[in-house]
Amino acid sequence: MLNVGFQIYAELYDCNPKKLSNVEDVRQIFLDAIIESKLTVLKECFHQFNPHGVTGNLILSESHANIHTWPEHSYVSVDIFTCDGEGEEKSKKAIQMLKERFGAKRIHIKEFHRGIIPKAKE
Amino acid sequence: MLNVGFQIYAELYDCNPKKLSNVEDVRQIFLDAIIESKLTVLKECFHQFNPHGVTGNLILSESHANIHTWPEHSYVSVDIFTCDGEGEEKSKKAIQMLKERFGAKRIHIKEFHRGIIPKAKE
Repeated sequence: MLNVGFQIYAELYDCNPKKLSNVEDVRQIFLDAIIESKLTVLKECFHQFNPHGVTGNLILSESHANIHTWPEHSYVSVDIFTCDGEGEEKSKKAIQMLKERFGAKRIHIKEFHRGIIPKAKE
Repeated sequence: MLNVGFQIYAELYDCNPKKLSNVEDVRQIFLDAIIESKLTVLKECFHQFNPHGVTGNLILSESHANIHTWPEHSYVSVDIFTCDGEGEEKSKKAIQMLKERFGAKRIHIKEFHRGIIPKAKE
């Protein structure tokens, strides 16, 4: 059996809420972490919620990355889905950068293999 | 404690590969299922991979939805993240529609609560 993809969910708690409110701040931190981790951004889409909070979706050549921020809870959720051999390592590097740059004091991570495919179909 | 969000991921196996190759086909099926499930699309972003396969990201007022298709494996991955009270029910309805419309013979679902926040911070 083969796994098509690797996915990581990260919960970033006790972040600096000042960094979570504005779409331009969140976009820059998110893009920098993804690109510095050698993941490849093909398309991006961000949205500013009112009164605060940001959602961002990136289409990667490796699959996708999502971010949501809740400044009122000092909380950020991040998902990264990759389907190349180095995706796991790159995703974990990106999560660590985001932890540092949002000033998260606690982080909780879940990891998954996505798409279990018989080898005969490869 | 409160959960900020509810996330569901679905593995759709043994789909009709003819429905998975082209970005316009995948986009229409995905948007229809999301909108008919009463989720609210704010922004959309899709990408056609070569030689085949599609990635789509939707920013929802409830959070986000992602899709990836692998026609060569007859496999589709879907993630839906919501943060309103009816999000769980709406997400499950959308997944069932996608199962039917992609002709999936097998489906595997996992559900998660995202962002565990102390009530005092509400």
